[in-house]
Amino acid sequence: MTELYSSMRVYVEDTDAGGIVYHANYLKYMERARTELMRSLGYSKPALFDGLQLVVHQLSIKYIHPALLDDEIRVLARLDKVKRVSFLMTQMIFREGICLAEADVKIACLDARTKKPAAIPLPMYAKLKGLND
Amino acid sequence: MTELYSSMRVYVEDTDAGGIVYHANYLKYMERARTELMRSLGYSKPALFDGLQLVVHQLSIKYIHPALLDDEIRVLARLDKVKRVSFLMTQMIFREGICLAEADVKIACLDARTKKPAAIPLPMYAKLKGLND
Amino acid sequence: MTELYSSMRVYVEDTDAGGIVYHANYLKYMERARTELMRSLGYSKPALFDGLQLVVHQLSIKYIHPALLDDEIRVLARLDKVKRVSFLMTQMIFREGICLAEADVKIACLDARTKKPAAIPLPMYAKLKGLND
Amino acid sequence: MTELYSSMRVYVEDTDAGGIVYHANYLKYMERARTELMRSLGYSKPALFDGLQLVVHQLSIKYIHPALLDDEIRVLARLDKVKRVSFLMTQMIFREGICLAEADVKIACLDARTKKPAAIPLPMYAKLKGLND
Repeated sequence: MTELYSSMRVYVEDTDAGGIVYHANYLKYMERARTELMRSLGYSKPALFDGLQLVVHQLSIKYIHPALLDDEIRVLARLDKVKRVSFLMTQMIFREGICLAEADVKIACLDARTKKPAAIPLPMYAKLKGLND
Repeated sequence: MTELYSSMRVYVEDTDAGGIVYHANYLKYMERARTELMRSLGYSKPALFDGLQLVVHQLSIKYIHPALLDDEIRVLARLDKVKRVSFLMTQMIFREGICLAEADVKIACLDARTKKPAAIPLPMYAKLKGLND
Repeated sequence: MTELYSSMRVYVEDTDAGGIVYHANYLKYMERARTELMRSLGYSKPALFDGLQLVVHQLSIKYIHPALLDDEIRVLARLDKVKRVSFLMTQMIFREGICLAEADVKIACLDARTKKPAAIPLPMYAKLKGLND
Repeated sequence: MTELYSSMRVYVEDTDAGGIVYHANYLKYMERARTELMRSLGYSKPALFDGLQLVVHQLSIKYIHPALLDDEIRVLARLDKVKRVSFLMTQMIFREGICLAEADVKIACLDARTKKPAAIPLPMYAKLKGLND
């Protein structure tokens, strides 16, 4: 299965007046991990390429335990299913082996100009499917 | 039904290099609308009060059409179900009557110190239930 | 003098674990106020237009009193000096008449493609100078 | 001289519709680098400690070249002058040896409760001065 863990640190910018990481910022951590997974597959700017654009189409997240200032976290990006115009990922955020948040994310490929669905280019599709391995 | 629409503007801070609003920032718009709904019920700092804390516990969002720089959007916060330690909301983001994003959000009440679930104070519970009306 | 005050609210997204507005977020408030000033002059997407781009080139800010969750603030954008490829603004953030922060901001006009300095288009230049009034 | 370089990556979250890093986000990079400098001196949550709080009091930044999506940047935090209730730092952001932005930052120590200036604790003061070396 195609997956990658990325390590990152929680900084003051990520926290809110509740003393915990602001809920929307978990999505930033997850996007960083997806970007690193794509980079590991050879795509250095996956969000924007060849007139195409990968965007989050659907996202479902459970916040289990709050991440805190200065935490060192590991963020999982795992490819679950690759389709012609989209793919599904599972993402989890861990601190010392404890899962803080878990999400299902559907990424869609768009034409960057029209913002309409577009087929994932075949070489990327094959990479995501793990067909080259 | 307890609901409120809040109007807001998309600024450069909200956008990303894809030329659209960064996906995590829709969650900020939704939180602003929830805050305004709570304010309309008489709670001016609902995120932090009386040693308690309201946090997002679960969130499921569909991105339908991208919001763009300078868009004027209307954000709905609607209370669907109020329970003893949590409540459920539907949230939608509109631009000129078109729904750009839709989310189900579960808000939980925590003890601010221990970060454990805590009962919503009765007066707030009654307000959220619309019992005072 | 060309100036405008914009009112806005401090939300949880803006705060940090220190219980105050995160220092970088004051810059967002100021950008919103600049955008509204430009809109009042007839420019609805001043950050990006006609192959040009207005960017912050230099910024100097003093943080005097912290802005807090739920504060209602008024943000001043005032044009001080308009030159051919840049202009200078004074910006201030107020809460109930008290100045929380004050900044000098230099905005430069760039060619959006080459990112090199470019002359402000004459109609905008005239507007900024107040020559049309 | 007490200084540290931190390496980081530019992600989509950092960029704006202009295709470059949003100007306020350079301040986040600089704060991360300051935090790492403090950590290297033995302070793991320097922003909040012992009832005290380190906050940005004054900041002056020049944006020289735009940082772009996917850039790998190195961020310098250098202590220039340590006083009893504040200290001054120089910060720079580099990409492949080219300076993208440069800032002077004044950090003040506050009483976390009253938000009034407070003396930097002596052990931290000595560390910042490099007296222990």
